[in-house]
Amino acid sequence: MAATRRVLIIGSGGQLGRAVGQAFKARQWLTFGADAHAAAKAPVTHILAMDSGSAPEDQGRQLVSELQRKLGSERLDAIVNVAGGFAMGSASDPAVVANTKAMVESSVYTSVIAAHAASLALRPGGLLILPGATAAFGPTAWSLPYGAAKAAVHHLVRSLADMETSGLPAGVKTIGLAPQTLDTPQNREALPAADRGSWASLEEVAEQLETWCADPSAVESGKVYVIRKANSLPATFEAKNPMMFFASNFENS
Amino acid sequence: MAATRRVLIIGSGGQLGRAVGQAFKARQWLTFGADAHAAAKAPVTHILAMDSGSAPEDQGRQLVSELQRKLGSERLDAIVNVAGGFAMGSASDPAVVANTKAMVESSVYTSVIAAHAASLALRPGGLLILPGATAAFGPTAWSLPYGAAKAAVHHLVRSLADMETSGLPAGVKTIGLAPQTLDTPQNREALPAADRGSWASLEEVAEQLETWCADPSAVESGKVYVIRKANSLPATFEAKNPMMFFASNFENS
Repeated sequence: MAATRRVLIIGSGGQLGRAVGQAFKARQWLTFGADAHAAAKAPVTHILAMDSGSAPEDQGRQLVSELQRKLGSERLDAIVNVAGGFAMGSASDPAVVANTKAMVESSVYTSVIAAHAASLALRPGGLLILPGATAAFGPTAWSLPYGAAKAAVHHLVRSLADMETSGLPAGVKTIGLAPQTLDTPQNREALPAADRGSWASLEEVAEQLETWCADPSAVESGKVYVIRKANSLPATFEAKNPMMFFASNFENS
Repeated sequence: MAATRRVLIIGSGGQLGRAVGQAFKARQWLTFGADAHAAAKAPVTHILAMDSGSAPEDQGRQLVSELQRKLGSERLDAIVNVAGGFAMGSASDPAVVANTKAMVESSVYTSVIAAHAASLALRPGGLLILPGATAAFGPTAWSLPYGAAKAAVHHLVRSLADMETSGLPAGVKTIGLAPQTLDTPQNREALPAADRGSWASLEEVAEQLETWCADPSAVESGKVYVIRKANSLPATFEAKNPMMFFASNFENS
């Protein structure tokens, strides 16, 4: 029998998070799930508390402490953070500051908590996956909150790949995941006329994440993987430098 | 007599902020100062409340409301945000999450508040200056909190330069300021053996900011200006793309 593999999923109660939990459970992982908003919905072996009302440093401490208690002398093979939300808002939007706070809390603080948990509980050679965004490769005047938070996550990805200084166990790789539109009930309702053949399904994204976590050897640390899909063909995942402009963004800017 | 010029200085109680207040007052600006921590120390005409204990969206609302009341039908010529702090911390640092919160609050939230205030109170063609950092041009595994927050600010700079979508008044320019080590009493004490001839003085930085604000025509919107100084010659200010690697960072990464 193969050794038990262990993954921590942050944002495990969200739509992508639930698909991730299912994909890992289906392949016999022991799954630990944490979510500030909907942990109870997560299809995971163990739910870890993450109190959205407390300060991020307290959330982090509580998460790590519960995780270590449940792990005992074992270590995680992977940490997958798929927390995050979405908000619009240019400078003139009355909600731009409040939305920035929401995006920072859901994407940036959870990613730093994930990195800190990785430093304490991830096995050498394990994989850490953080929630990036295709939008953050270029300017996002239409959403300062979303773009700024995701640019910060991309910066964490490239910083954590610096193995000498990162504070992570030896050989740990860190990557970002940058979805474009995913095929969810909400997106089907919001964009009824869209070309769904370019939308990756939650299942195919979750299965790719599991594949990477099961064997990170092909993964390039410090890159953000952009999900691409066209004509209903299987989604592909393209490694990009976190801070690089796309040609299309560059032309528009 | 020349028309009265008006500037809002965020972070006006800090060391650079006080030098900025003095430089603008010396050149007959009407100065509005806000600081979450030390507003009372600011040498400005009007102090605006900024309660560090309240949520960022409430700080922003309070700041804008007081500002508009004091401005009446007038508008600002410039907004200069020099708030921010510094914190070390790799992934394994027990304080990495708390320090991320501190850096986000001092650099990112104040910058979004500054952008929102600009949308409501800055004159067309005015100048918005945000607090960037040279470190954020490359990976910062040695400080996830500082690097991530400053990368977010750099992202705001390039996003706000998109005039069609930014929500800012017509012709407003947005730039970042990226200091290297500044000549402060703290740095003299912390780094007694350093080459002070490469440290820009607070006064020369403040005077450059005033020059840009008095006439933004030479300023390139969307750039981060890196302060360079060598051999005790006057500091120079070099415009950089916010997300571009420096060659030296690139070689190290």
